[in-house]
Amino acid sequence: MTNFIPKTENYKSRVEESFARQHAMHSLGIVIVDLAPGELVLEMPFQPGFTQQHGFMHAGIITTALDSACGYAAFSLMPEDAAVLTIELKTSLLAPADGERFTFKAKVVKPGRTITFVEGTAFAHKGNQEKAVATMTATMMAVTGREAIKN
Amino acid sequence: MTNFIPKTENYKSRVEESFARQHAMHSLGIVIVDLAPGELVLEMPFQPGFTQQHGFMHAGIITTALDSACGYAAFSLMPEDAAVLTIELKTSLLAPADGERFTFKAKVVKPGRTITFVEGTAFAHKGNQEKAVATMTATMMAVTGREAIKN
Amino acid sequence: MTNFIPKTENYKSRVEESFARQHAMHSLGIVIVDLAPGELVLEMPFQPGFTQQHGFMHAGIITTALDSACGYAAFSLMPEDAAVLTIELKTSLLAPADGERFTFKAKVVKPGRTITFVEGTAFAHKGNQEKAVATMTATMMAVTGREAIKN
Amino acid sequence: MTNFIPKTENYKSRVEESFARQHAMHSLGIVIVDLAPGELVLEMPFQPGFTQQHGFMHAGIITTALDSACGYAAFSLMPEDAAVLTIELKTSLLAPADGERFTFKAKVVKPGRTITFVEGTAFAHKGNQEKAVATMTATMMAVTGREAIKN
Repeated sequence: MTNFIPKTENYKSRVEESFARQHAMHSLGIVIVDLAPGELVLEMPFQPGFTQQHGFMHAGIITTALDSACGYAAFSLMPEDAAVLTIELKTSLLAPADGERFTFKAKVVKPGRTITFVEGTAFAHKGNQEKAVATMTATMMAVTGREAIKN
Repeated sequence: MTNFIPKTENYKSRVEESFARQHAMHSLGIVIVDLAPGELVLEMPFQPGFTQQHGFMHAGIITTALDSACGYAAFSLMPEDAAVLTIELKTSLLAPADGERFTFKAKVVKPGRTITFVEGTAFAHKGNQEKAVATMTATMMAVTGREAIKN
Repeated sequence: MTNFIPKTENYKSRVEESFARQHAMHSLGIVIVDLAPGELVLEMPFQPGFTQQHGFMHAGIITTALDSACGYAAFSLMPEDAAVLTIELKTSLLAPADGERFTFKAKVVKPGRTITFVEGTAFAHKGNQEKAVATMTATMMAVTGREAIKN
Repeated sequence: MTNFIPKTENYKSRVEESFARQHAMHSLGIVIVDLAPGELVLEMPFQPGFTQQHGFMHAGIITTALDSACGYAAFSLMPEDAAVLTIELKTSLLAPADGERFTFKAKVVKPGRTITFVEGTAFAHKGNQEKAVATMTATMMAVTGREAIKN
């Protein structure tokens, strides 16, 4: 297990404040449940307004939560003046997203000055049952010095 | 340009009815603006409730629309008894999703009995300006005979 | 840790025989060093004839080994009459492939009747040092009844 | 059609010289057949030593050629002091790579100071028949100031 060392003392509040500005997280009821340097866990209840045609959570909504989990896992290791942008993401849909609530676990695979590689897994929960329903691999970029893109 | 031949006469109504059951599309204000065998165009207004931390549309929401566009482009070529599921998708984020409205164009690259490959592009519109902000490649699967997964 | 149960008693010889027919493995000096149901480890020496422009192993050659590792990890869980084909693969290049020898570890994430999801990691070795240089996520398909594609 | 403007007058010789240093291209008999700013076409004969288990070209070898095609399409638009590295690539295998020779066409989708997005397609040729057998989307990075990685 790699232990990552954050570049800022306030990495936690930096993630929380930036996450709070993502209106998408608020509208989907997604919250941070765990946060460590290079790692993040998010949680979302079943959202009946965001299903696909069979009544399961839409793959894009699962991707939305995984993308934020991966992005902030990367951001937690970035320096003070950096903002984070997703360069690309891939989601593998292991099983229909059928659950009462969902958790999204992300972990940095390799941090870098410019590029950070991150992986995430989405789990569906039903009673005490937990099932992996999707995995993500994503490439995140540290951006500095662009006016429109700050933290 | 490949011209695809649909396997059903009512491919159009099949797509429209299934699309109408995707609550995620309704909640995000996403509508079908064009539909041909193997091709689909969706449109979404800027949705202030679904932004990321810099005020642009969240990459996951762009992915949500592209996934539905790609999925229904594939579905339009599938036989009567088939439902469609996304196996995997990759989104490349070319530029921040900064626009007043967005269009999502998907086109089947190669249809198959089980597996269909699809590509899509997301465009941001500002006034008369159009800009590609994301591309998707996705693998879709035709599913038959599963009780929970019908059309 | 998931323990996978193979569908055939001779899963090991099935993998070995099919692997032996991959001329690409022979030409690149890639061999099987470990094999369990749903898991495979391959090894390759540094191949000076297959470098990129800076003298490291070419990303595509790393991908070639990872693809075979993932494909045969999937194949080890497939029934007697099935052949395996790669539907898609994604490689993330964590670091330049700079090493004296390389190992490639693949593990099935989710097996299925038609679709199997697999993940792999490539490691570069220098003396006693081991370093992850690439990760793969791949989708494999069980194919039956096609004349040209057998085992 | 976007027309890209190269940042160097000698973009052509820069690509040719760097390509010539890729031993993997030489060993696989891959040559440049067309080169324009942001675009590249490579060609490879059928290589019996690099097949998979059914006698088709190995997906990883197709990926190797596509990766070089995409990488040099990106490199052709980069400034004098930049080298190119692949961050990640995804290959979709549309059909078995069954042909007498293969061509690989790559085109930059969006160039950038640090990150360039590229797409490529592999075609199998048999007599006068041409068939798309694989597509790639890749993210390339311009690297400067690293001793080991020059052009």
